Amino acid sequence: MRHLKNSSKKAGLPPGTLVHVGEKRTEEVRITLIDYDENRVEEKTDSTVEACLPFKALPTVTWINVTGIHDINVIREFGEAFDIHPLVLEDIVHTGQRPKVEDLGGYLYIVLKMLVSGNSENDFDAEQVSLILGSNFVLSFQEKEGDVFDSVRDRIKKGKGRIRKAGSDYLAYRLIDAIVDNYFGVLEAVGEKIEKIEENVLAKSNPSTLKQIQDTKRKMIILRKFVWPLREAISSLERGESPLIGEGVRPYLRDVYDHTIQVIETVETFRDTISGTLDIYLSSVSNRMNEVMKVLTIIATIFIPLTFIVGVYGMNFKYMPELEWKWGYLAIWIVIIVISCLMLLGFKRKKWL
Amino acid sequence: MRHLKNSSKKAGLPPGTLVHVGEKRTEEVRITLIDYDENRVEEKTDSTVEACLPFKALPTVTWINVTGIHDINVIREFGEAFDIHPLVLEDIVHTGQRPKVEDLGGYLYIVLKMLVSGNSENDFDAEQVSLILGSNFVLSFQEKEGDVFDSVRDRIKKGKGRIRKAGSDYLAYRLIDAIVDNYFGVLEAVGEKIEKIEENVLAKSNPSTLKQIQDTKRKMIILRKFVWPLREAISSLERGESPLIGEGVRPYLRDVYDHTIQVIETVETFRDTISGTLDIYLSSVSNRMNEVMKVLTIIATIFIPLTFIVGVYGMNFKYMPELEWKWGYLAIWIVIIVISCLMLLGFKRKKWL
Amino acid sequence: MRHLKNSSKKAGLPPGTLVHVGEKRTEEVRITLIDYDENRVEEKTDSTVEACLPFKALPTVTWINVTGIHDINVIREFGEAFDIHPLVLEDIVHTGQRPKVEDLGGYLYIVLKMLVSGNSENDFDAEQVSLILGSNFVLSFQEKEGDVFDSVRDRIKKGKGRIRKAGSDYLAYRLIDAIVDNYFGVLEAVGEKIEKIEENVLAKSNPSTLKQIQDTKRKMIILRKFVWPLREAISSLERGESPLIGEGVRPYLRDVYDHTIQVIETVETFRDTISGTLDIYLSSVSNRMNEVMKVLTIIATIFIPLTFIVGVYGMNFKYMPELEWKWGYLAIWIVIIVISCLMLLGFKRKKWL
Amino acid sequence: MRHLKNSSKKAGLPPGTLVHVGEKRTEEVRITLIDYDENRVEEKTDSTVEACLPFKALPTVTWINVTGIHDINVIREFGEAFDIHPLVLEDIVHTGQRPKVEDLGGYLYIVLKMLVSGNSENDFDAEQVSLILGSNFVLSFQEKEGDVFDSVRDRIKKGKGRIRKAGSDYLAYRLIDAIVDNYFGVLEAVGEKIEKIEENVLAKSNPSTLKQIQDTKRKMIILRKFVWPLREAISSLERGESPLIGEGVRPYLRDVYDHTIQVIETVETFRDTISGTLDIYLSSVSNRMNEVMKVLTIIATIFIPLTFIVGVYGMNFKYMPELEWKWGYLAIWIVIIVISCLMLLGFKRKKWL
Amino acid sequence: MRHLKNSSKKAGLPPGTLVHVGEKRTEEVRITLIDYDENRVEEKTDSTVEACLPFKALPTVTWINVTGIHDINVIREFGEAFDIHPLVLEDIVHTGQRPKVEDLGGYLYIVLKMLVSGNSENDFDAEQVSLILGSNFVLSFQEKEGDVFDSVRDRIKKGKGRIRKAGSDYLAYRLIDAIVDNYFGVLEAVGEKIEKIEENVLAKSNPSTLKQIQDTKRKMIILRKFVWPLREAISSLERGESPLIGEGVRPYLRDVYDHTIQVIETVETFRDTISGTLDIYLSSVSNRMNEVMKVLTIIATIFIPLTFIVGVYGMNFKYMPELEWKWGYLAIWIVIIVISCLMLLGFKRKKWL
Repeated sequence: MRHLKNSSKKAGLPPGTLVHVGEKRTEEVRITLIDYDENRVEEKTDSTVEACLPFKALPTVTWINVTGIHDINVIREFGEAFDIHPLVLEDIVHTGQRPKVEDLGGYLYIVLKMLVSGNSENDFDAEQVSLILGSNFVLSFQEKEGDVFDSVRDRIKKGKGRIRKAGSDYLAYRLIDAIVDNYFGVLEAVGEKIEKIEENVLAKSNPSTLKQIQDTKRKMIILRKFVWPLREAISSLERGESPLIGEGVRPYLRDVYDHTIQVIETVETFRDTISGTLDIYLSSVSNRMNEVMKVLTIIATIFIPLTFIVGVYGMNFKYMPELEWKWGYLAIWIVIIVISCLMLLGFKRKKWL
Repeated sequence: MRHLKNSSKKAGLPPGTLVHVGEKRTEEVRITLIDYDENRVEEKTDSTVEACLPFKALPTVTWINVTGIHDINVIREFGEAFDIHPLVLEDIVHTGQRPKVEDLGGYLYIVLKMLVSGNSENDFDAEQVSLILGSNFVLSFQEKEGDVFDSVRDRIKKGKGRIRKAGSDYLAYRLIDAIVDNYFGVLEAVGEKIEKIEENVLAKSNPSTLKQIQDTKRKMIILRKFVWPLREAISSLERGESPLIGEGVRPYLRDVYDHTIQVIETVETFRDTISGTLDIYLSSVSNRMNEVMKVLTIIATIFIPLTFIVGVYGMNFKYMPELEWKWGYLAIWIVIIVISCLMLLGFKRKKWL
Repeated sequence: MRHLKNSSKKAGLPPGTLVHVGEKRTEEVRITLIDYDENRVEEKTDSTVEACLPFKALPTVTWINVTGIHDINVIREFGEAFDIHPLVLEDIVHTGQRPKVEDLGGYLYIVLKMLVSGNSENDFDAEQVSLILGSNFVLSFQEKEGDVFDSVRDRIKKGKGRIRKAGSDYLAYRLIDAIVDNYFGVLEAVGEKIEKIEENVLAKSNPSTLKQIQDTKRKMIILRKFVWPLREAISSLERGESPLIGEGVRPYLRDVYDHTIQVIETVETFRDTISGTLDIYLSSVSNRMNEVMKVLTIIATIFIPLTFIVGVYGMNFKYMPELEWKWGYLAIWIVIIVISCLMLLGFKRKKWL
Repeated sequence: MRHLKNSSKKAGLPPGTLVHVGEKRTEEVRITLIDYDENRVEEKTDSTVEACLPFKALPTVTWINVTGIHDINVIREFGEAFDIHPLVLEDIVHTGQRPKVEDLGGYLYIVLKMLVSGNSENDFDAEQVSLILGSNFVLSFQEKEGDVFDSVRDRIKKGKGRIRKAGSDYLAYRLIDAIVDNYFGVLEAVGEKIEKIEENVLAKSNPSTLKQIQDTKRKMIILRKFVWPLREAISSLERGESPLIGEGVRPYLRDVYDHTIQVIETVETFRDTISGTLDIYLSSVSNRMNEVMKVLTIIATIFIPLTFIVGVYGMNFKYMPELEWKWGYLAIWIVIIVISCLMLLGFKRKKWL
Repeated sequence: MRHLKNSSKKAGLPPGTLVHVGEKRTEEVRITLIDYDENRVEEKTDSTVEACLPFKALPTVTWINVTGIHDINVIREFGEAFDIHPLVLEDIVHTGQRPKVEDLGGYLYIVLKMLVSGNSENDFDAEQVSLILGSNFVLSFQEKEGDVFDSVRDRIKKGKGRIRKAGSDYLAYRLIDAIVDNYFGVLEAVGEKIEKIEENVLAKSNPSTLKQIQDTKRKMIILRKFVWPLREAISSLERGESPLIGEGVRPYLRDVYDHTIQVIETVETFRDTISGTLDIYLSSVSNRMNEVMKVLTIIATIFIPLTFIVGVYGMNFKYMPELEWKWGYLAIWIVIIVISCLMLLGFKRKKWL
């Protein structure tokens, strides 16, 4: 719901108007460029749009990563430099997009959501990542510092594996793969939390359990919103409708596709588990309550008839023969004890105790 | 359900009979005309059907906005002047339509629902808007004063952006876009209300909370009814089945399409959230009730055995040795205090307190 | 479930055997014939099958309406006269059909359900209507007197509008339209009933409310069963798979199709509303109960400790110093009042009162 | 779940191994043969496989009905005589099949479930029926004595109607039709039971009602499992993918198809009704309980303050002026009665009584 | 959720990196080879990758079973020897796959889940089985000792049935069939457990019942996760998209396909049954609780008015005429007994007892 907060400030503006919708930020926008082919790698940190432009013409693969999308001007400069459609630019700076792939002729526009573990231990923070995949470049836009791409950077610099030999499509795949793989880490954390909730749910049942259950439920809803459309998007990439995606990358995309399905299935299983936990929670709350009420009611029920009996002999009638008996008091105690025992026995037989 | 109120008065009439179905109104119907091309713009407020006719022949884009559909005669005149099918006219004046696009050869008929913030702060008012998109004109029919088109009018008059250079299809797109964008504002308001409900739900739980929850639920159902068919309708526009929609407008329509999906997703998320809130509400109501009952029952349970004990020594037996003891009274107090403490301890150990 | 009652009596009979399944009736079957073209109209009430036959050969449109399907012989005669498949005849007299359209080459067989307001004010009565649409005739079969076709008859006789100029397909459309339009009237009545239930649900909550809610729910299920397959059937008609449906009638069929969707949507909305009402009802019942229990328990809880106190001073110990004090009795009253006030205050602070 | 009991004994055996899975039986397998054409009919009861073989070569229609599938040898002999695939034989003797149609080139294999009314009045017994439809023969395999085919046998012997003139496809249709028609009888019985449950549910609510509701629910689940795949299977038959099904039999198959849909719809309606009944039941149970608790609590609440008052005057303080008053006792009775009346009035006003 | 535990350790690694994800194991990897044709069979236990290689060139069918996938090196050697794609190798050692079939040109990759009965009697253990089906070989990879393939091995060695005459596709089918058939055994055990739960649910209702119900529910979810995608996978095999699957094996695959549907249906039925059981359980818990509360409350309610009465005659008023009466005490007992009887009668008439 976060991005809704500012969505309405866009209402009334013409399409293609760049308005940053998302968390307010003030940091400088950071541009990092990595240019590589099989033999060579070149990295420029804190670069500028102009410094990036010459690499566009080179046949080497160029990866330009932009951290920070709140500076409209930088985005617009990129748009002009790389000839990107205004509606795409608008989507890049509007963080309320759902994951999708759009084929715009000369390039593909891919949006997806990156999860980064948030400040509180169990929370995750969602961040929008936009990829522009051209024939020999990949532009990536993220909202803020901190991403899951370090392993990709490392592989490029060290020149290990396929990545240096492959094209920009393989690079885009690796970025998507890094984001999707990271979902498993988040799911693992959530899974552990659910297990903790399950253990606690029968032991203690304070309202906070309910809150946690609802929280986890909501997180699953959010994750599902991220992954369902992603599955579709990757499937459309894999079916190979764009010439920008080479034949060799397809099996890898199918692999990511399988991963998104695994994420979805895990999310659905978690939702089922959480529902079951909610049922157990509600049932255990009322069970415990019932337990309390039953024991207390039994105590009251035993003593009420006894109180009546002692009340009888507290009456002040002149002629009450029992009061005069020598063993009357003892007898009444015996009666009381017998009645108590009989009631306890009866309750036991009826399994109320 | 509003439009159902008068739907039955149509039963038995032949198709194509114009019967206004909707809120009763008595205001004058207002016709506003804006005619423009790249170089020129002309506006006529409080125009008449006859005054509009000459513009139909011009190659410029003509936007005729009709506010008020309760005057059947005006609608019929438009129908004749612009050669509109009687069934379309019937749909225009019947406010119970669901959003749809119909291709009638020479023109497209588009119905959708405009939300305008109602009188009470959190309420919104739905109004039916019909668009007739011809090759060089757009007719728009709305139920009453007040719309979300001011920004469009402003852009046309000031000649900023693409709008003056584009055709009637782009104008229709801008009107649809304005209506859909406005949904986000309404969703934002609803989202804030849901957050307020969520905060209150654990604190105080009067039946009004339940009413609010059900209210929000119903609003979401209404919104869904507006947006689901709209999605489909826009998708059919975007797939370009009509020659009236130019190739250049398609990306913009896809953008609106994305927005409708975002609206739908937000609505679904709100529904999930609201369901969760309802669960928490119901659970917290019964929790609080249980809390009360438990404490009260515990008080009763402690005192009932004590009352029995003091009842014992209120008996009038002649031979009750304890009554004669010097410290009997003190002893009985000690017994009472010891029993109370034991019971309290027992309750504490069982976590009932 | 009504028609199930007699369905089993068919078991074991060969297909095409005419067995009337439905409410038992004894009235005479009434046959009404209206024959018309643009210039002429001829009506025959209480006609016979033989009297109808000559009109079949004429190029004019012939509408034969048969009221009463319990007389197997009449139906069989029609079957022979108009060359109708035995399985179709079997369906006509078996009132357990679901709405459908069947193309049998020379004619179309259309079944749908007509709602007529029943005897009790809020109830409606469903009746099966079968239409046989030939190239120049329409046969309509209904179960009993009373239908929604009066406006159609009126239009034909007065020669207003399109109907006299159009063919038998348009007549069939008008009959279907009349039936579907009538659903809105029924929905309106149900809608008002739902509103009444909603108003009452918070005020008084006798078990009859629950009965009403379940009743409305069931009606919605029945309506849905009538309209869902109808939607499909009309859609297949409109897609123009049969040459019997002229091109000019298609837009009208699309209009009816839209109406069926509106009916379905209203039914779904009503179901949602009714579910919400059920939730509110159940919640308000338990709320009121809780209110009662709480107040009563509080009264008991305040008096139980007080009763204990007065019990203490009802003990007969010889040495109870307080009993001898001059102001003992007054003191005990003060203690009682103080304790009561403290408890009431405590309850207030905890918001239990 | 019945057939699951023995399914596991098959695990590890190669495919095509004949293992009877179902209720253990010891009766002799009974083979009945009816051979007929338009002019002639011949019946052989208690026949053998060898005696059946010659009829296979004749152009007449041969219906061989096998009652009892527990004797593997008989089935194997049939398999060899009629050249049936081992996997089909395996399915015939394994009663855990779901309804399906399989086209095996020279013949069709059709499995469906026959319902026979069981021993207890409301129960039904499901039995697997396998049909092998060849160009001039039909083999039918049932589990035990008692079927719904008597009317078919009767029609063949008496030579009434189409059956003697039609081929083996029509015979197969008639057998399927007899089985499906019989479902309506079972549904009728279930419908009556549901009505009885509905009537009782508000009157008395013993746990047995819940059991009955769950029982009916489960029966609906079973029926649905039988009819859903059957619908699909018949639909595939009707679409005419096999040359064994003549053009003339198609309309009849569409008729059976309609019946299966009616069965499904009735089952779904019953499920909805039963759910509603469950809601009413649960609500009425808690309502009655609440009624009891309320009245009892009110009685307790009235007497507790009164008991406090009489407790006050049971205290033994030396100086209690009221005790000395002449009309003290009378006054206390007046106080007691006034308080009781006030409380009763208060409860009445709050509608707690 | 098991495999999630280690999934995150893969994050950041390039695709095709072999990382074993699953339970930690230390046993030696065991390789068993069976090579056979119609005339000859050769078995090698505890073989090595090199020893297997020569058999690949032979025209005979070679089945290599690898028990243990935790030794990355063995898997990599196989990958190189049989020319398997790195992504497939990655999937083989990552036990979090969902059942699927992938066609990789020269061979098919099939993943499915084998159930082996676990240590505790009612539990089952899921294990991932990967099959590589080449034109004349089948590689099978399982996680640990113990499988359901013994019957297949036995058939091969004894040379009974079709298996020795058929190709590698038939072998793969037999392995899949063995795994699916084994599901029925697991389902049977679960079914018996459900029946036990159902029997107990009305008798005793300790929280453990709830736990068992939730456990069974979860198992059904897991099974469904295994079988749903398997159904799809087998269906794609059966549709014959790969030349590796011969025409003769198709009917057998359709048979397995039917079995997976039966498994799914049984799982769904179990889920429905379990839900019904949960409803009965919850209802019976609250019923029993209500029963207890009612009886106890009735006891309390009878004695509270009686206690009031005896309290009245415990008052110390000077002038209480009844106290002086000779038969006062007796009278009061009569009054008490009469009141008790009246109340009991009243409760009986209201059916509270």
